[in-house]
Amino acid sequence: MAVPIDPTSAAFLYAENRQMPMHVGGLQLFEKPEGAPQDYVREIYEQMSQAQDVAPLFLKRPTRGVTTAGQWVWTPDDDFDLEYHFRHSALPEPGRVRELLELCSRLHSTRLARERPLWEAHLIEGMQDGRVALYTKLHHSLVDGVSAMRLLQSVMSTDPDRRDMAPMWAQRPAARTRKAQAEAERSIGSIPLDAFRTALGITADAAGLPGALVKTLLHGVRNETSALSLYAPRTMFNTTITGSRRFAAQDWPLERLRAIGKASGTTLNDVVLAMCSGAIRSYLLEQEALPDSGLVAMVPVGLNAKQAGSASGAGGNAVGAVMVKLGTELADPADRLASIHRSMVTGKQALSSMTPMQITAMTALGMAPSIVIPALRLGGLIRPPFNLIISNVPGPRKPQYLNGARMTGTYPLSIPINGMALNITCNSYVDDMCFGLTGCRRSVPSLQRLLTHLDDEVAALEKAAGVA
Amino acid sequence: MAVPIDPTSAAFLYAENRQMPMHVGGLQLFEKPEGAPQDYVREIYEQMSQAQDVAPLFLKRPTRGVTTAGQWVWTPDDDFDLEYHFRHSALPEPGRVRELLELCSRLHSTRLARERPLWEAHLIEGMQDGRVALYTKLHHSLVDGVSAMRLLQSVMSTDPDRRDMAPMWAQRPAARTRKAQAEAERSIGSIPLDAFRTALGITADAAGLPGALVKTLLHGVRNETSALSLYAPRTMFNTTITGSRRFAAQDWPLERLRAIGKASGTTLNDVVLAMCSGAIRSYLLEQEALPDSGLVAMVPVGLNAKQAGSASGAGGNAVGAVMVKLGTELADPADRLASIHRSMVTGKQALSSMTPMQITAMTALGMAPSIVIPALRLGGLIRPPFNLIISNVPGPRKPQYLNGARMTGTYPLSIPINGMALNITCNSYVDDMCFGLTGCRRSVPSLQRLLTHLDDEVAALEKAAGVA
Repeated sequence: MAVPIDPTSAAFLYAENRQMPMHVGGLQLFEKPEGAPQDYVREIYEQMSQAQDVAPLFLKRPTRGVTTAGQWVWTPDDDFDLEYHFRHSALPEPGRVRELLELCSRLHSTRLARERPLWEAHLIEGMQDGRVALYTKLHHSLVDGVSAMRLLQSVMSTDPDRRDMAPMWAQRPAARTRKAQAEAERSIGSIPLDAFRTALGITADAAGLPGALVKTLLHGVRNETSALSLYAPRTMFNTTITGSRRFAAQDWPLERLRAIGKASGTTLNDVVLAMCSGAIRSYLLEQEALPDSGLVAMVPVGLNAKQAGSASGAGGNAVGAVMVKLGTELADPADRLASIHRSMVTGKQALSSMTPMQITAMTALGMAPSIVIPALRLGGLIRPPFNLIISNVPGPRKPQYLNGARMTGTYPLSIPINGMALNITCNSYVDDMCFGLTGCRRSVPSLQRLLTHLDDEVAALEKAAGVA
Repeated sequence: MAVPIDPTSAAFLYAENRQMPMHVGGLQLFEKPEGAPQDYVREIYEQMSQAQDVAPLFLKRPTRGVTTAGQWVWTPDDDFDLEYHFRHSALPEPGRVRELLELCSRLHSTRLARERPLWEAHLIEGMQDGRVALYTKLHHSLVDGVSAMRLLQSVMSTDPDRRDMAPMWAQRPAARTRKAQAEAERSIGSIPLDAFRTALGITADAAGLPGALVKTLLHGVRNETSALSLYAPRTMFNTTITGSRRFAAQDWPLERLRAIGKASGTTLNDVVLAMCSGAIRSYLLEQEALPDSGLVAMVPVGLNAKQAGSASGAGGNAVGAVMVKLGTELADPADRLASIHRSMVTGKQALSSMTPMQITAMTALGMAPSIVIPALRLGGLIRPPFNLIISNVPGPRKPQYLNGARMTGTYPLSIPINGMALNITCNSYVDDMCFGLTGCRRSVPSLQRLLTHLDDEVAALEKAAGVA
């Protein structure tokens, strides 16, 4: 019953070690439905635990040995124990967001045991404000980050009255899956699942280090072929990491960010990047570690059909990556925003002039940096091609419900790697922009300070744009 | 800086797999001191987290590789992260003992990751009755079960006013260690730490499978040399196990058990065994799985100086093992108690007539069954030598305090192994006998039913002895 593991997934298994657990995570917060009984969370836990028919993705575990000639293969877990994977937990007093983030940091720090299927889900009660949290952890060899977030959302409904919804790991009838998927596609925005699958397929080649691809990428990041690549300065984030994680999350009203964009003639994404830039500048100043030249972020962007034509087999949309100068060397928030806007425009123009091979290479970089960046180093790259990754993925526009509980926010947890100790991933949800910051706890001390700086930066940008 | 791992410890590392995690555990319950602040548990957690100077036992991790010729060696963890090992947790609502035991079952099911030092401690709040729990997990390659319980108790004090006590993992000045150890020796009863060390030293040979030892043991359990060994029937407990654990714990007043012993002319230990026997009989009847012939328990017992003379290098006390006929085939509680008493007396007499080599062999069996029993099977033993292990270790006689919090109970979690899915370990504490039952969740379904049966059995024994 063993099934070979595709090269990308296998690459994540080989790349993983104690310092670099290769799982992505998601934190979702829910408001209990009105009139929920005292033991509502336990009821939900027990109901979700009843899914006897578990989907193959959640049943398989990686094995290798003499019979597989040392290669990783997937085998179904004969001793599958749902209680091991799905857990009911609670926060210590006083149950603030701080305690929740501490727990998520801890859960995100531990590696998934390979002797079992590579996922966990934790239903967490005990929040001071009565909300319920769901932290989910999936190995990168099962899904990429964006697909993970979609998977989490695919089990929810826009209907607050719907109950008895199957959990993520339940085997669903094909018809229902199609419907759920179609619903998810609509609500999630413009990037269909296929695009990610294609991008990941491309990454599979990258993991095998085909010479041409690495060469193209090296040319790109060495600034030899296009305007979209830059040298990034060395920073405290670009160092070896430990296995300890710190996670911080918060959201800001889209309305505030859109107002800044409108008043300054920039996009929502520019404003998100400017928030990150200002926050990182303040953080590095505090740490007395701000380099003279500006930091560079790799920002995955959606490509339109024409650009993506050759990159995506399905002829649909695809994902590329733009190198953005964050302007952290500039003291004025308005200057930073303007600089980011210009860098983004230039980057997108450069992307549109790229060859299919270059787009392919950039896409691989955007989808699986944890395996592509080490490949680049093997290819002879010394200085970091960029300082961090900032992703911003559109999320559901309508409120989502899980068995009547309204989701109030959804935050991604990503994978810091050696040389890239901090990761910022955002997704929109209804009226908010949700930020998830994942870092190595030692390399990025007091990571939660970045939340304060992000908040200050929104105010500073509002003031600069004259909308405060 | 690598240190070779002694053969016994290495044997536990080699024997371990997903189905048989090789760690022992302890659950301790505490009452907060009067006038404790709202955030008392967090304060305690933070205070305990401040121990910067960690003892070598808690810093070392097992490694092996080309440079060690494939052998396991201990190396200090250069990336040691206390936050990973010591965790602050909480129970979900309603925070009954049931939720606590569920959490402990789950924590006891997961294997310790070998990439880090092999221990964890979880400070648990959220109990309905306001108590605080501490679950501690130590790999059997670091300590044996009894030493683990002693280690846990060595950090406590009989002085309710003492504060700022160092946690288990803190490096303590030698003088203080000696004092703490002396205190522990006094309060814990008659078996000094050395005895266990010696027994474990003996086990080291057993792990290396010296022919004479295995032969002696095989003779013993095949009933060829002495009256203390028996054939045990096959039961549902004597099967292969999975990695899922269920833990149940409860205590009963020593006064009640002593009254039964006094009225029936039996010992406290006999009464404890009779409780287990009656409970197991009721459980197996419920499961329609009671064998016709009575179950046999292996019961570790203390040996007096004369008996132990040759077994213990220090000339002190040592531990042997007696095979006890539990009388589960008898319907009457009084008959079962009488049968156990006779079996125990015979067993101890047999033990006193044993040769030093036989005592050594029995001791090895008592101290490390998880590595000795597989060795016996390799030696040609087909039927189980006994059905389960029931240990009863004397615990502290005076109330113990941890930073002013009075310990109300202390319960051992042990290691089920293939062929031995259930384990019962008891220790006394002040006025109570604390029972800890650890089993494979699949092989011993509804394990917590045994608690009800134990409780019923105390009442039945009281009635039979005329003390109800």
